[in-house]
Amino acid sequence: MAEKKIPYKIYLNENEIPSKWYNLRADMKNKPAPLLNPATLKPMTAEELSPVFCEELVAQELNNTDAYIDIPQEIQDFYKMYRPSPLIRAYFLEKALDTPAKIYYKFEGNNTSGSHKLNSAIAQAYYAKKQGLKGVTTETGAGQWGTALSMACSYFDLDCKVFMVKVSYEQKPFRREVMRTYGASVTPSPSLTTEVGKKILAEHPGTTGSLGCAISEAVEVAVTSEGYRYVLGSVLNQVLLHQSVIGLEAKAALDKYGVKPDIIIGCAGGGSNLGGLIAPFMGEKLRGEADYRIIAVEPASCPSFTRGKFAYDFCDTGMVCPLAKMYTLGSGFIPSANHAGGLRYHGMSSTLSQLYHDGYMEATSVEQTSVFEAAEKFARVEGILPAPESSHAIRAAIDEALKCKETGEEKTILFGLTGTGYFDMVAYEKYNDGEMTDYIPTDEDLEKGFAGLPNIPEE
Amino acid sequence: MAEKKIPYKIYLNENEIPSKWYNLRADMKNKPAPLLNPATLKPMTAEELSPVFCEELVAQELNNTDAYIDIPQEIQDFYKMYRPSPLIRAYFLEKALDTPAKIYYKFEGNNTSGSHKLNSAIAQAYYAKKQGLKGVTTETGAGQWGTALSMACSYFDLDCKVFMVKVSYEQKPFRREVMRTYGASVTPSPSLTTEVGKKILAEHPGTTGSLGCAISEAVEVAVTSEGYRYVLGSVLNQVLLHQSVIGLEAKAALDKYGVKPDIIIGCAGGGSNLGGLIAPFMGEKLRGEADYRIIAVEPASCPSFTRGKFAYDFCDTGMVCPLAKMYTLGSGFIPSANHAGGLRYHGMSSTLSQLYHDGYMEATSVEQTSVFEAAEKFARVEGILPAPESSHAIRAAIDEALKCKETGEEKTILFGLTGTGYFDMVAYEKYNDGEMTDYIPTDEDLEKGFAGLPNIPEE
Repeated sequence: MAEKKIPYKIYLNENEIPSKWYNLRADMKNKPAPLLNPATLKPMTAEELSPVFCEELVAQELNNTDAYIDIPQEIQDFYKMYRPSPLIRAYFLEKALDTPAKIYYKFEGNNTSGSHKLNSAIAQAYYAKKQGLKGVTTETGAGQWGTALSMACSYFDLDCKVFMVKVSYEQKPFRREVMRTYGASVTPSPSLTTEVGKKILAEHPGTTGSLGCAISEAVEVAVTSEGYRYVLGSVLNQVLLHQSVIGLEAKAALDKYGVKPDIIIGCAGGGSNLGGLIAPFMGEKLRGEADYRIIAVEPASCPSFTRGKFAYDFCDTGMVCPLAKMYTLGSGFIPSANHAGGLRYHGMSSTLSQLYHDGYMEATSVEQTSVFEAAEKFARVEGILPAPESSHAIRAAIDEALKCKETGEEKTILFGLTGTGYFDMVAYEKYNDGEMTDYIPTDEDLEKGFAGLPNIPEE
Repeated sequence: MAEKKIPYKIYLNENEIPSKWYNLRADMKNKPAPLLNPATLKPMTAEELSPVFCEELVAQELNNTDAYIDIPQEIQDFYKMYRPSPLIRAYFLEKALDTPAKIYYKFEGNNTSGSHKLNSAIAQAYYAKKQGLKGVTTETGAGQWGTALSMACSYFDLDCKVFMVKVSYEQKPFRREVMRTYGASVTPSPSLTTEVGKKILAEHPGTTGSLGCAISEAVEVAVTSEGYRYVLGSVLNQVLLHQSVIGLEAKAALDKYGVKPDIIIGCAGGGSNLGGLIAPFMGEKLRGEADYRIIAVEPASCPSFTRGKFAYDFCDTGMVCPLAKMYTLGSGFIPSANHAGGLRYHGMSSTLSQLYHDGYMEATSVEQTSVFEAAEKFARVEGILPAPESSHAIRAAIDEALKCKETGEEKTILFGLTGTGYFDMVAYEKYNDGEMTDYIPTDEDLEKGFAGLPNIPEE
């Protein structure tokens, strides 16, 4: 084979860290549907969004036309702290699976937040600082986003208030300490510190919380506190924009060795990692320059792509946020408490939803015991203990590699390894003890969530 | 300045991973004193050591003459999974300290074991497998060594029995799960599963354990189980040999940019990291080719270098192991339970002890609240949450950099950042809550430990 010998880890040089983010929306014929003002049902204007989000982030949120947006120097400097992240050839996994497939993964876990979330956290903190704000509020599920934001706020000396989904707060006490070490305050959600929290607790006493609840609380605090704005770690267009560094670096590393993936796989909760990983590849696909199979992997217990509706819905449980058109299970949907694998959000990025609706990508759902089985196999052969979220992508990548083994096809698979599982040992313990169970919502369960969808007349 | 612009992270290429370990002892005029048979007080022979250790490791332990020893290909392959590790220029820290010093650190935490321990674990597992053994036993303190060994044993399909110091077992429940995820069994020490454990518990009911106790238990199980040997993560000559990859890579990375450190700093418990980091630099110093200030940093609560005696002592509390000549606090010394920062071993590598005794290196001790203060500062500016052990080196490096600020000297400081603190959040929580206290043993405390030193006649 004339092919260049590919190392275990492909590192770009520091000066190859992208200097521009890639804005996928610029290349989409069907743009993602706009956010709607829930009172008027008209598209949210920049003016309407600015009490919630920083001004520059509002501009990015609404920008469907510029394909590239400069990364400010301050953010590029911070990126040097932990980027470029390695693109790893999974030689050990390929050997263990005895597959002719060639597997690559982009590993975003080598930073203290433990995930890709830092890519957007530092951008959002930067714009908040630039606007002269005192601080920001946010929600966190597994805790990765909260940790990332704490690190970013610490760097720019901003106050950081985190609402953490109660089930994660309890399962991951040490996450709270990491956030505190970076100076953040952390409140389990739903809490009695907000009006919306009190309301949710009154309606659902004993709830273990959801991202949708925590978002409502964080937004309430942001809009009622002087000098604060709300920031979000997923779902939004701006987040996918920032996360495009993942895909841009991955593509640059593959290009160095002349490698073109056949299949690109990412786990999908709100879409931040998937949207970032696939961005430049999807761009080529949209422009007709190349073709790729792109697969979103979600938990069977929270199946927004595979079993949700493509409809306008609230982004949060408290219904204080704008409406987004997306694949959704309904803002009232809360996954079963036995679900340990993250990716608990009821909806999905509008951008990815539109692309899925238009047939540019596929989606699949996997059950959590099979996810942890894949995680453990991966940990043992590749030496990285993966986050449960990331392990959804591992599961799908292994399944595709095993299909190649059957057919003898030498497909090239790229997947996103979004983070590490050091703070997920309660879930691993459950799996190690054989006490992990699966949960698939029944159609009746889903109907309850759909019943709460707002009734928006088609234009 | 004509100096090449130094990136934030210097990565070597995969083919620059060392293919030979460097054996410091070959260049020492005064060799480290041999291990003694406690019954005969004569140097332990290879034959006497082989019931405890694998044969090839015994040969490495006793080899004081070969400067370079080939790294078997299987180990080199495994190293590619997580090496080369980055050498990081601490630009952010330098700026925060406003110091003219140039600070570099070799970061060994970017692997699932979270520390440098994997460098020796994989070597020891390899030789055990090569010898056809069923499994190995060991002790672990902070849990880093146990995790590393679990990973290595999983890779070579060896059984792995870990005795974990009880205080760590309780403070770090999730460490146990990581080890289990890699297939190891973990027992808190002292335990009732061994004779020596029962004896220690009878004499010291309620003890929180020590490395010395856990070693005794692990050795007992190894010598009484068919097909098992004992492995150790620090102190031994063989471990320092394997850890030389740290220093060899660090030196190769600095050489690329023509940088020569003035000061080299490492934390010291048993000496595995320090011995590995300084190896090639110390070699130059021993051969008279270069000079460096080399500083060992230990906790004030377990000050073997700075307040211990240079004498023959037992390596373990149960006194079942050979005697080593080293700086020691006595094998009965157990640090105060308030001590959260690792580095709890009563003795110190014989090799490093000899070098310290001969004036080739300095030692200093630091108190734990100042260590966590340095850790938090470092985490906030450099973005890496350091292990408490590693933070001893950070403390000393910051102190040296601040001295440079006073004098205006542009010294180059290299320190070892041995690992990450993700499993040390109980200690961080204590620090964040302002509940961390310091402990310095009184002279009377130390005398109690010294009273237990064996009486070995000078030759």
